[in-house]
Amino acid sequence: MASPFTDFALMSDLSQEGGKIVLLVMDGLGGLPRTPGGRTELETARTPNLDRLAAAGSLGLSVPVRPGVEPGSGPAHLSLFGYDPLRYLIGRGVLEALGIGFALQPNDLAARGNFATVDGDGFITDRRAGRIPTEACIRLTAKLREASAGLFDDCELFVEPVQEHRFVFVLRGEGLGGELTDTDPLAVGRKPLPVRDESGSGAGARAAELVNRWVAHARRTLADEPRANSLNLRGLAQDPGLPQFGDIYGMRAGAIAVYPMYRGVASLVGMEAIRFEGERPRDEIDALAGAWNSYDFFFVHIKKTDSYGEDGDFDGKVAEIEAVDEQIPRIEALGPGALIVTGDHSTPAVLGSHSWHPVPTLLWSPRAMPDAGGQFGERACAAGQLGVFHATTLIPQAMAHAGRLKRFGA
Amino acid sequence: MASPFTDFALMSDLSQEGGKIVLLVMDGLGGLPRTPGGRTELETARTPNLDRLAAAGSLGLSVPVRPGVEPGSGPAHLSLFGYDPLRYLIGRGVLEALGIGFALQPNDLAARGNFATVDGDGFITDRRAGRIPTEACIRLTAKLREASAGLFDDCELFVEPVQEHRFVFVLRGEGLGGELTDTDPLAVGRKPLPVRDESGSGAGARAAELVNRWVAHARRTLADEPRANSLNLRGLAQDPGLPQFGDIYGMRAGAIAVYPMYRGVASLVGMEAIRFEGERPRDEIDALAGAWNSYDFFFVHIKKTDSYGEDGDFDGKVAEIEAVDEQIPRIEALGPGALIVTGDHSTPAVLGSHSWHPVPTLLWSPRAMPDAGGQFGERACAAGQLGVFHATTLIPQAMAHAGRLKRFGA
Repeated sequence: MASPFTDFALMSDLSQEGGKIVLLVMDGLGGLPRTPGGRTELETARTPNLDRLAAAGSLGLSVPVRPGVEPGSGPAHLSLFGYDPLRYLIGRGVLEALGIGFALQPNDLAARGNFATVDGDGFITDRRAGRIPTEACIRLTAKLREASAGLFDDCELFVEPVQEHRFVFVLRGEGLGGELTDTDPLAVGRKPLPVRDESGSGAGARAAELVNRWVAHARRTLADEPRANSLNLRGLAQDPGLPQFGDIYGMRAGAIAVYPMYRGVASLVGMEAIRFEGERPRDEIDALAGAWNSYDFFFVHIKKTDSYGEDGDFDGKVAEIEAVDEQIPRIEALGPGALIVTGDHSTPAVLGSHSWHPVPTLLWSPRAMPDAGGQFGERACAAGQLGVFHATTLIPQAMAHAGRLKRFGA
Repeated sequence: MASPFTDFALMSDLSQEGGKIVLLVMDGLGGLPRTPGGRTELETARTPNLDRLAAAGSLGLSVPVRPGVEPGSGPAHLSLFGYDPLRYLIGRGVLEALGIGFALQPNDLAARGNFATVDGDGFITDRRAGRIPTEACIRLTAKLREASAGLFDDCELFVEPVQEHRFVFVLRGEGLGGELTDTDPLAVGRKPLPVRDESGSGAGARAAELVNRWVAHARRTLADEPRANSLNLRGLAQDPGLPQFGDIYGMRAGAIAVYPMYRGVASLVGMEAIRFEGERPRDEIDALAGAWNSYDFFFVHIKKTDSYGEDGDFDGKVAEIEAVDEQIPRIEALGPGALIVTGDHSTPAVLGSHSWHPVPTLLWSPRAMPDAGGQFGERACAAGQLGVFHATTLIPQAMAHAGRLKRFGA
């Protein structure tokens, strides 16, 4: 609402020391009723602890990108961190590299790669090379790595498998940049395109030339493969150099996430990844407790709510929400100044996909205005004190509740 | 989300004659429950008249600056008047001068002054001169006025007491301006700083030179004082020359307020102060009735709700809200086209301070969409027709209800 977005200069001016803040993100939290007149996943789940916090805290609905816009995971998280995702763009190549836990460095040029099939004249007959198995992807990326060794004097390159026909390509060296186009013509029956630089910069020209050289070399290496005899690169991009979380909010931030992609997005804004063993919510709260004294702000990411939603598994998503609820008293016991429980976007099991629906959000703090109702769910959130708000304004609201913002003006 | 702020050009295009509007501001109206599960100040107060209006009107929660940002009184009122307080800044010196009712003229340069103690080498030992009593402040400002008489040929100067160690300094003359730094180093053990101009303008250079000359002269005058043997100036500023209320909305506006500061902020946007006797809500409504035929828009400011909140006096705040409620039928009897009842910000008695919580707001009009519930309180407002909205959009909504806005487009 209001200014849809957080004003970084204002935050930096007003921030001060205060209580610790926990941002607990259940990925894809928002849902839809399974049957007409029924309850959503969150409303169905038995969540006595979240309901107790809802009775003592403020509720609302969060809009991640713009009303009606279904977000990808990258922009949805950026928005929760306060960054308007229309202004701060992360290239697809960077997200793909973060997704496999690749330790991307600031100047690295990363691309999403697809193995493809071409005919004898070089026309694409299958943009996904028949969705080769992941084992084949692993073998082919190793083959490309070996064949590419020593190709460039002054650049390092990385070819890493992802899944099926997908891989990550990273070029590391000085003076790379530009705005680089894709090689994928996005249709069969056409030839792959050369990479062009649209920035007109020297760094862009150099990057385009190196990438085109590698692509030609790689295609020659793959020529004898039956299906994956070619490849395409998409979303060539670098770390966008985002304003850093600590500079904006004056908080040292730690990230707790099972999946590398979310640690990766957090690292782009300057959060430190907190390492831990295990994959369950209780393991993540163990990590939270262990790192409690080292940070001011904690981003805790629960993945499986989204996975179950994507799988159309309503009951699985309900059970995962209940598993998170069980951990809530352990977070409370740490004594946060403010605790946010929300999602990055909605993933209703009945849709089996991310959706644009605004996301149920709970902001608990000893200084919160308690909402009526006492249940954490989509319908209760629609009548809450926080209203329907842009996700970028959530951290400032939590900071206020944790005593971390000075007064504006006299 | 929508568009954040009021578009002045749009208002100016659409405004037309219509019913009268009353903006009744109970300063610091928003509160918090005194005990868990309890009611806020507004929910506790017996307000049969406001509740009746709530049942016939629309409710919502107002965000003065940005979500999470605790406002000072100046920015909070500007926002209610429709001015985004991040865009329209009022310098601290101007607010201080307005606060004592100083009749600031457009080019006046005003500063907040603090008497201070320095040691024999000029290092500050107490930035507040031991918080000297206000009587001493009155004596010292008189001494400075006398000693400064005739110091400048072409400028007038004013030194006015405020409270304890605080005073107001105003320089009046042609060609003053710039962006002037403070003399206060904000720490003991340091020497006061010279005023510098950061605008690079001729007016800034001239103003800095004159202010520095006066400061040096004033410090010599104070040298024999035991405690207040020096002074600092902060927030040197001029009337920011805000767009005028009448030009934007096409309404002639009168301001009714007991405290000079609020008449002052209103005067900055071009409202006329309506003079009256007495300090109680009924006295203010007497003034409203008396001036009813002279204005289109009335800003009525009730101070004591905030004062009680700041004092942590829950019951006092409740009683003041009830005293305002008693006056509501008298406002209704005047036949306004729209009546807004709101606060400039929240001042929960349990916090004893301004806060960032959005402000309960009631918009009554014969043409309002009535909300369910029939009680004026924070929780009812969260579920109201107006939603959670930026304070700058309140006057346009009231104008619509009073028939003062033409249709936009065909």
